[in-house]
Amino acid sequence: MISIAILGHGVVGSGVVEIINNNINKLNEKIGEEIKIAKILVRDVKKHLNKVNSNLLTDNIEDIFSENVDIVVEVMGGIDPAYDYIKKFLNLKKHIVTANKDLIAKHGDELLDMAKENGVRLHFEASVGGGIPILRPLSECLSGNNFNSINAILNGTTNFILSRMDKDNMDYEEALKYAQELGFAEANPESDVMGYDSARKLSILSTIAYNEKVNWEKIHIQGITDIDKNDIEFAKKIGCRIKLLGISKKENGNIYASVRPVMVNKDSSIGKIEDEFNGIVLDGDAVGNVMFYGKGAGKLPTASAVFGDIVDIIQNNRQKLACFNKKEALIQKNYQNKCKWMVRVKTENKHEIMKELADFEKFYLDINKEFKNEVIALIEVENEEILNEKINKLKKIPNVYDVKSIMVLGDN
Amino acid sequence: MISIAILGHGVVGSGVVEIINNNINKLNEKIGEEIKIAKILVRDVKKHLNKVNSNLLTDNIEDIFSENVDIVVEVMGGIDPAYDYIKKFLNLKKHIVTANKDLIAKHGDELLDMAKENGVRLHFEASVGGGIPILRPLSECLSGNNFNSINAILNGTTNFILSRMDKDNMDYEEALKYAQELGFAEANPESDVMGYDSARKLSILSTIAYNEKVNWEKIHIQGITDIDKNDIEFAKKIGCRIKLLGISKKENGNIYASVRPVMVNKDSSIGKIEDEFNGIVLDGDAVGNVMFYGKGAGKLPTASAVFGDIVDIIQNNRQKLACFNKKEALIQKNYQNKCKWMVRVKTENKHEIMKELADFEKFYLDINKEFKNEVIALIEVENEEILNEKINKLKKIPNVYDVKSIMVLGDN
Repeated sequence: MISIAILGHGVVGSGVVEIINNNINKLNEKIGEEIKIAKILVRDVKKHLNKVNSNLLTDNIEDIFSENVDIVVEVMGGIDPAYDYIKKFLNLKKHIVTANKDLIAKHGDELLDMAKENGVRLHFEASVGGGIPILRPLSECLSGNNFNSINAILNGTTNFILSRMDKDNMDYEEALKYAQELGFAEANPESDVMGYDSARKLSILSTIAYNEKVNWEKIHIQGITDIDKNDIEFAKKIGCRIKLLGISKKENGNIYASVRPVMVNKDSSIGKIEDEFNGIVLDGDAVGNVMFYGKGAGKLPTASAVFGDIVDIIQNNRQKLACFNKKEALIQKNYQNKCKWMVRVKTENKHEIMKELADFEKFYLDINKEFKNEVIALIEVENEEILNEKINKLKKIPNVYDVKSIMVLGDN
Repeated sequence: MISIAILGHGVVGSGVVEIINNNINKLNEKIGEEIKIAKILVRDVKKHLNKVNSNLLTDNIEDIFSENVDIVVEVMGGIDPAYDYIKKFLNLKKHIVTANKDLIAKHGDELLDMAKENGVRLHFEASVGGGIPILRPLSECLSGNNFNSINAILNGTTNFILSRMDKDNMDYEEALKYAQELGFAEANPESDVMGYDSARKLSILSTIAYNEKVNWEKIHIQGITDIDKNDIEFAKKIGCRIKLLGISKKENGNIYASVRPVMVNKDSSIGKIEDEFNGIVLDGDAVGNVMFYGKGAGKLPTASAVFGDIVDIIQNNRQKLACFNKKEALIQKNYQNKCKWMVRVKTENKHEIMKELADFEKFYLDINKEFKNEVIALIEVENEEILNEKINKLKKIPNVYDVKSIMVLGDN
């Protein structure tokens, strides 16, 4: 008999309870193990009485510390108090399954070490890509590869907003409001729209792929809040869609990592990922490009990943994912490869700007009155440093109000 | 020290040797295990002397039976003698990793039982989707799901041929010849172009997904050998591409399974899979649609999957994939769902045919002289049985020479 405690009974927690209950017979039949939920930690017991047997509920973490459970599932989210709870459970030699990307991106290395010292396991498949199997395929099935790059849409909220802007001609504010109405965006959308959520997930993926710690706070992070209709329009003009991409590359021992809006070919595998879906493209030296695609969030998709981790622990009581390296990677903030960039220059001095951009592909944006005094060009540069020099030069031209740039990736 | 024997040193076998040698240090660092190749079975030792240390080579299987190895990697292919060898190794309590889809589709259930009885493991990730991680994600990460359907491009050769017909206007014979020149098709392409290879892989996937044996010899199998330019042209006209799909669905306790050419929306995730790539879409009740995409064959992609299985065995000495059910599924040969079909009727009696098809969308194919006397219609029917009745009726009309139909799937 495997006994499980669940910390949290919100959207994901209630999904985990549902999937465990649906699979009790199957587990018994397939692997000959009985499984039961022993305790569920909630903030307010009264609020959950109509959904769960009251004997299971507690609002006191001490009840769970003292309960004889085998596996603790943490689906509360956030660093505090989840971090302290998990450390205590690891020291009590309990296996942990968590969906908590904030916690793993920040303390994954330390917690995995503690799990190893205590002879128990810590799994977090649900922390990246929701229900999409990605961490286990990456760290186990593909362990014979050295990875060259990761290109991924890791946040469903922002992809939903960008899809509405692209397909339904909404502006950013409208699309955000619509996403909030449908439950795809939270009341405070900061973590999603500013790119922090994607950055945490990219850090977890990259740390495993390159076997060096990619600290999410050290990477370049740019969200989608200043994407406007004209950016979308321009992307369409060149056969692209704007996506919030997590990108990391390993080159010459350094790692470039960033989260930023990128114009990707609308017919590429990443360009085709719409609405709330996520997609992750890994480039391994043996396997080439592999893509994983599916729903990156939601009650049952996330609970599906949590359940997979529970089964893995039941089937195999050994530490496996010991490859969350502490050694910090050398992270480059600037994109190191030659590529095209869209550069938008707001100016009353079009003539001068166009002279400056004479060598590049040019467009004259005249979509609506607000943006009338604007030159847009597609410029190809060797790397982002050179782009930044160019932009600084443009900014110094008299009567230039603003210069904006978005990367254009042709591949994938 | 983990000692490995490899049966076969062809394309995949030499890839496995390469990846093992490239990863010896990494394995040692990550999981503290040393690994060595102890013996390689080849047909003719002389042919391999310039590639491998001669001490490792043998043409006598008895040398490997008597060697003290932990894991045997079988990359010879075919049923005979691989089947007898693997049974003997399982009885000798050796773990097995194989890339052999023919063998697993035919004897997977028996061999997994033998592995279980002997307390060793049998893994075959490389048998489906080449380097794409699919069997382990399906059977482990997604084990909390009941699967509704699988839609997949499982054969790179046929997808390459169909891509050439679609993109480069080649006819079938030209495209096949081109694929053979590039090494994407074998001199005898039967197993690929007739759909048998896809059917074996679909049977392995479906047996795991539905936990019932889906015998590949009992499913409807139709290859791509009679696809002509007009089929491709017609598919384009309705916004589709023709793909050789492995399709299975579980409905009301029955399983529908088939391999057949299908017209899929060119903008769908499956429609976008071009050239030699494979893609597998699983629909699970918790996770929704997830897709796995990458190179389905080739030296290093396949070896990457074999290596992942080796590492899994080293890390975890317990039987896990015990879910290859012996109990045969009730398999339906006819497609049970309402969908559209393209129906091509060669006739000198157009008037009568068009009367018969009056209720459906009609097209008049007039692309070249050979096909002049032809009516094409898109007809929507409740299921394939009704389609077949309709086709039989059409065939009985005087001066009808031939009736051909291809399924049109709008989703994915």
